[in-house]
Amino acid sequence: MIKHLFKPVLATATLAMAIGLSNQTLAQHDDAESSTSERRHVILIIGDGMDDHQITIARNYLKGARGKLLLDQLPLRSASQILTQDNETPAKPVYVADSANSATSMATGVSTSRGRIATSAGEDRDLTTIAELVKKAGYATGIVSTASVTDATPASFIAHAASRGCENPTVMFPSEESPRWLDPSDCEVDRISNGGPGSIAQQIALGEHDVILGGGQKHFMPIAENSDKTVVQLAQENQYRVINDLAGLSDVQATALVEDKILGLFSPSTMPTRWQGQDGRSAEKPQPSLLNMIDWRIGSVELPSPMTCEANPKFEGMPSLKQMTDTALEQLSRRSEKGFFLMVESASIDKQSHARNPCGSIGEVEQLEEALASTLAFAQRNPNTLILVTADHGQAAQLIPSSSLFAAVGVPVYSPGHIARLVTQENQILTVNYATNDFPAEEHTGTNVPLFSNDVGLGRVPPMVTQPEIFDIMKDYLMK
Amino acid sequence: MIKHLFKPVLATATLAMAIGLSNQTLAQHDDAESSTSERRHVILIIGDGMDDHQITIARNYLKGARGKLLLDQLPLRSASQILTQDNETPAKPVYVADSANSATSMATGVSTSRGRIATSAGEDRDLTTIAELVKKAGYATGIVSTASVTDATPASFIAHAASRGCENPTVMFPSEESPRWLDPSDCEVDRISNGGPGSIAQQIALGEHDVILGGGQKHFMPIAENSDKTVVQLAQENQYRVINDLAGLSDVQATALVEDKILGLFSPSTMPTRWQGQDGRSAEKPQPSLLNMIDWRIGSVELPSPMTCEANPKFEGMPSLKQMTDTALEQLSRRSEKGFFLMVESASIDKQSHARNPCGSIGEVEQLEEALASTLAFAQRNPNTLILVTADHGQAAQLIPSSSLFAAVGVPVYSPGHIARLVTQENQILTVNYATNDFPAEEHTGTNVPLFSNDVGLGRVPPMVTQPEIFDIMKDYLMK
Repeated sequence: MIKHLFKPVLATATLAMAIGLSNQTLAQHDDAESSTSERRHVILIIGDGMDDHQITIARNYLKGARGKLLLDQLPLRSASQILTQDNETPAKPVYVADSANSATSMATGVSTSRGRIATSAGEDRDLTTIAELVKKAGYATGIVSTASVTDATPASFIAHAASRGCENPTVMFPSEESPRWLDPSDCEVDRISNGGPGSIAQQIALGEHDVILGGGQKHFMPIAENSDKTVVQLAQENQYRVINDLAGLSDVQATALVEDKILGLFSPSTMPTRWQGQDGRSAEKPQPSLLNMIDWRIGSVELPSPMTCEANPKFEGMPSLKQMTDTALEQLSRRSEKGFFLMVESASIDKQSHARNPCGSIGEVEQLEEALASTLAFAQRNPNTLILVTADHGQAAQLIPSSSLFAAVGVPVYSPGHIARLVTQENQILTVNYATNDFPAEEHTGTNVPLFSNDVGLGRVPPMVTQPEIFDIMKDYLMK
Repeated sequence: MIKHLFKPVLATATLAMAIGLSNQTLAQHDDAESSTSERRHVILIIGDGMDDHQITIARNYLKGARGKLLLDQLPLRSASQILTQDNETPAKPVYVADSANSATSMATGVSTSRGRIATSAGEDRDLTTIAELVKKAGYATGIVSTASVTDATPASFIAHAASRGCENPTVMFPSEESPRWLDPSDCEVDRISNGGPGSIAQQIALGEHDVILGGGQKHFMPIAENSDKTVVQLAQENQYRVINDLAGLSDVQATALVEDKILGLFSPSTMPTRWQGQDGRSAEKPQPSLLNMIDWRIGSVELPSPMTCEANPKFEGMPSLKQMTDTALEQLSRRSEKGFFLMVESASIDKQSHARNPCGSIGEVEQLEEALASTLAFAQRNPNTLILVTADHGQAAQLIPSSSLFAAVGVPVYSPGHIARLVTQENQILTVNYATNDFPAEEHTGTNVPLFSNDVGLGRVPPMVTQPEIFDIMKDYLMK
């Protein structure tokens, strides 16, 4: 019904223009990709931490107050209700998730506790992921992320661990390199010597998924457990073509054989973001005068000076999320007559919100938009493609007034947290507030998050789902 | 399409049970209300400040982490993009709204500047409201709010003013009673002596809308401009039956004549909320130890003690939002063969978030839910009823982790703002953070907000609208 009443906002021609494809290019793709019309594809795009606040901030900066993101133009909007369990008492809820348990919900259909990678709360049972399930059924599978491919979100689709910290063989054993927050005993149960599957990197190296692209080189360098080889050597023995840069990505596009699996690791850890704050600045604390510190009704406050976003020099030479997604789409298309499952994550919307850097987050929403445009173009040529776009959980950044609602009272009114004042293309100030804590990293939030879909989702995605039901929607589309 | 694939969550029988109506009662209503099947009705329910955070907090407290609000079960979910203009340079956007300009968007289809009541940014032109438009076309019109009926949201549907502060004749002239934030010259242009329409209360008293129910007695007590009578006397002369309590509301239900207009003023100003924090507590500041104040990595912090929500004794004897809505539905049904427009506002979701009182906000979401149930039951009996539920803007309250994501680091991690730690029915702690400022009242936020509809909205409400487009949807439904 909706389909007919509203104009199709993403008609092929418009979209081709939007993403810079000529009709000829589209036609060539048609030949190559649509040989089997029975094939079905699911593409799950996760904007890590991308709740409505993060979307609104990005929309205002990228498109203006009246502008629309590509996200906003998708034909279906739903909401995802985030579920998290208490690890000690799994029947009890926890009201704010992390990326590990929320990705596990989507990947496995089971709500678990914070920090867990496709394992169950309390009892640590391995949970079958959508990627494993459809791989077994003959589909091709792919993972693209701007985080380390061993990070919580991608890992939850292709590995199993009691703790998200168990990313590489080194941290499986107590060491100075272990993250401070990681209790090394958390990884004990997953050690190979204890009958476990080993670190997340090692599980990926020994796995069967077709295309894995992202950051995380450093997790593949250590000597593997129970081996005299590095993790990356294990991957190569297991038919992975391992690439490390943009040139490698182009080369793989041109020369990869259908039997090759592809492991792209483009940076030591998280890939650099496209944007940063002017002169590298993040949000800063307003500076009240001495008088104001004595009595809030008097004195004055100095707010951080306004700034714009600028290119992050570290991003130069990195593959964009779109380029990785394009490669994944093409390579996965070649690898199965049944179709594929692809998860694409824009990871640093979250990571840059933790770091109070709105420009970082906004640039990564832009990256997500470009990847989404690629997948929509793919779905135009391959109509049996279900595209879902969602967030895993909420994030700290809030859009607050640049001029307080109470400015007329005539006393200094300012955030107790950190704020960034961005100058938009409309030459107005957009104020972003980070105030969930004063620790070096902000908290997540517990809000329900948006879930979008292309027209294939109409009738399949109800107006609200629990996050684990996203697994059911994807499974039902591919496995029925 | 969606209609057929998903089970109708609000079937008549279920709904009747949910709201405590017997089938017999439903049948009686059928006879009374459905005499003219051509009639069309629009009910716009506004949860003031009710963004996804406020909804999630209320859902967790009222229904549990896996529970669903009635809102969540509506068959259509969309989003509303809030627009605000700069009053000095109306072409320029402002990124955070207030209730006056956002209600004006919905009431008139025109985006204006903060503080304005159905008048245009900069030039102060009166903007025709949906209530005025359909009243002229022969529809009945009604306004229900838990705020003063002269407050920004209701006022924007039934009055015109350069400033939301111009609520009564007294404040039209500089006085000690004027709110501190109100520049008395703001009301000058609207004085009757200057050719203006007078204060908001006086405009309401002299107006033609059929049913107006809410708080705000104090704004109707002063002597009217250009008159020796009080504003309430003017209303009575203008055929308004004025009622002041629950008994009056029942009496009106039983005895009102079709030619009576009804003005219910149930409290001096904003109506008391149903709930409050335990022992009247609101959110409080975490108290760091001296050591922690010297160095954030050491020492400790004392968090506010957990609490539950409790009944607000001041609410006793007040009509609920549902009772006011029921009266409005019945009275409006009798008054026009064409149908009616009704705006219902749950105002204190916002006001209690300003005041950092999550229990206040949650109780008012519950009131909205009950009113929504009444309107859905009405729509079951009167199928040509478009119900829209939305928020006017975002609010400060954020759901943050009760145990920090960084707890394992072992240093005190806590909000720089105010927090409340609520004990839920699941016996877990739900932590609500208020940290947009340290002023006595929190700020609004700029996030896009949810827009829900009953099945009449399918095909009429696209997946995303700008807030002024809500006016177009309502107008198109009634006027075409």
